[in-house]
Amino acid sequence: MGNPTVSSGKAPEVENDDDFRVHVFSSSSELLEKLHEKWSSVEKQPYPAMYSSIFGGIILDPAMMVIPIDDHMVHRGHGVFDTSIVLDGYLYELDVHLDRFLLSASKAKISSPFSQSTLRSIIIQLTAASKCKKGTLRFWLSAGPGDFLLSPAGCPTSAFYAVVIDHDFSQCKEGVKVITSNVPMKPPLFATAKNVNYLPNVLSVMEAEEKGASSSIWVDEEGYIAEVPNVNVAFITQDKELVMAPFDNILRGCTAKRLLELAPRGEGQGVEMRCASKILMVVEGKVAGESLFVRRPLTLLPRMVWDVQPNGSGGVGEITMLISNLMWGGKGSFLDTQGNRVPYVE
Amino acid sequence: MGNPTVSSGKAPEVENDDDFRVHVFSSSSELLEKLHEKWSSVEKQPYPAMYSSIFGGIILDPAMMVIPIDDHMVHRGHGVFDTSIVLDGYLYELDVHLDRFLLSASKAKISSPFSQSTLRSIIIQLTAASKCKKGTLRFWLSAGPGDFLLSPAGCPTSAFYAVVIDHDFSQCKEGVKVITSNVPMKPPLFATAKNVNYLPNVLSVMEAEEKGASSSIWVDEEGYIAEVPNVNVAFITQDKELVMAPFDNILRGCTAKRLLELAPRGEGQGVEMRCASKILMVVEGKVAGESLFVRRPLTLLPRMVWDVQPNGSGGVGEITMLISNLMWGGKGSFLDTQGNRVPYVE
Repeated sequence: MGNPTVSSGKAPEVENDDDFRVHVFSSSSELLEKLHEKWSSVEKQPYPAMYSSIFGGIILDPAMMVIPIDDHMVHRGHGVFDTSIVLDGYLYELDVHLDRFLLSASKAKISSPFSQSTLRSIIIQLTAASKCKKGTLRFWLSAGPGDFLLSPAGCPTSAFYAVVIDHDFSQCKEGVKVITSNVPMKPPLFATAKNVNYLPNVLSVMEAEEKGASSSIWVDEEGYIAEVPNVNVAFITQDKELVMAPFDNILRGCTAKRLLELAPRGEGQGVEMRCASKILMVVEGKVAGESLFVRRPLTLLPRMVWDVQPNGSGGVGEITMLISNLMWGGKGSFLDTQGNRVPYVE
Repeated sequence: MGNPTVSSGKAPEVENDDDFRVHVFSSSSELLEKLHEKWSSVEKQPYPAMYSSIFGGIILDPAMMVIPIDDHMVHRGHGVFDTSIVLDGYLYELDVHLDRFLLSASKAKISSPFSQSTLRSIIIQLTAASKCKKGTLRFWLSAGPGDFLLSPAGCPTSAFYAVVIDHDFSQCKEGVKVITSNVPMKPPLFATAKNVNYLPNVLSVMEAEEKGASSSIWVDEEGYIAEVPNVNVAFITQDKELVMAPFDNILRGCTAKRLLELAPRGEGQGVEMRCASKILMVVEGKVAGESLFVRRPLTLLPRMVWDVQPNGSGGVGEITMLISNLMWGGKGSFLDTQGNRVPYVE
């Protein structure tokens, strides 16, 4: 969101205070002016709008898309989140995500300052104010600001934040390379609530990137496949059976759920296939006919190369592409579901 | 840090958008004005100053003590922190904390935008600007703002934030009640780096509070005592041996380290005592002669009541108080160490 003024990159060693004076802003107006100057050089604002219950409204100025430093989500990770997509002016499956969002909040012992219908209304109005037609909505519930302690007892109220992210996406037709993660998995209590304690996920992805892959797969101590940090993973066995890890110890993906509903329809397409949400050993996963990432509804990532060896034929999996096509169009597809129309004002 | 305008507490169910209009701020100035109005009713500002490398300076206005919503510390927990104390115009053991801070950062794969001496200089100047004479300094290194992805690859620079917290503290002479935590412990990689993924710690403390205690103790699967979320715990056995859990799987407390250096001096006080940093079973801990929390240097919490049964005599432990006194004064005490004098301008 910007660069520090004091230094860009590594600062020189400072031996005594005389060498180095930190600027003290005389007022918030001086600071705002500086931030506006910085933002004026940015070609396209990445987030067209943000809502904050602490501000009590929607802000369109990127300089103020901020959260109090004493919010317990910032310094303790006491916050949960979820994401919806907006496409062609519709917010899809918002309530599926809000349901999971409030479930995550309850596991993290955060009570929402708003009812589900108010949350829905805020998100829809935020999207309208943003004018964004294609992108993602990310929203958080936090224990709120108040102090720097562990317990939220000193926080007067929990907080709700939401951001609209302009983002282009389309049907994904290329494979991805993955590795087995060396970063320890989270205990089930924390893996099943979508909270902001994602350092294990971050380190997993960084480990993959360092090795030229795009993601890494978590495998539990017994060698069962769990998940990729922030996506579910599915396999199509040689018997044309779609298999995913059960959701006991990992996040219940909304798209994975939808996929399980959708997959039997493959039969109508001449592909015999059934879903089984059962555990799968690494050895089975690696020899599976096809494999796919199950992330956002419309960004199934077909075919993957896992720890060097490509799955199946090495080409983009036929059944995977069939499922992806089922998601993208026709009766019962993801886009066929009832979305919330966003009341944009032109 | 404030209450939302839209609602205080639970909002009513909203059946359709017509019932409920979210305010859209016309400008940042309008928002700032509102925030100033809110802050004007607050009797005493809790944080006299904040530094942000994103702002490139020190801000004294609480309305702007904020962090960008897209900072990866906020939404991914990709940040580390540490804390120092300021007392009588001195910052104590700042470099001990900065050493650990940079070690935590390296474990979280965050490279500091500043050298250690620049970090030190910023913290000292911040404290001077705050005019705070007694309180704590909390500081963070974050992967920085940039986007809402997992990987920090899209973040132009890491970020450094620091806040001065006005806070009174004195030698603690009363016991605390603790319970055994039911919240799962963190894997060693995450427990040994002081990062903001503290949801397990938060839930542990909330569990304790629900049961009328002030803290809970983490015990590992084999029944060995680990730590209290954000403090080390020590025991003095019937043989007058000071015992702490080893630091392999828990955070290496700066005060615990100091305590281990200090404890042999008890001998000079007529108390035979030696330190051993070894593992201790719950059963041993519960029958220990005395027990103490090892938090900030000057807030050792003597005597605790664990899962109902009081340790030792039930009174404040004699040896614990002796150690606490050693910390508070005299040669070799905590206050005898070289602090960084803060160059306040009156």
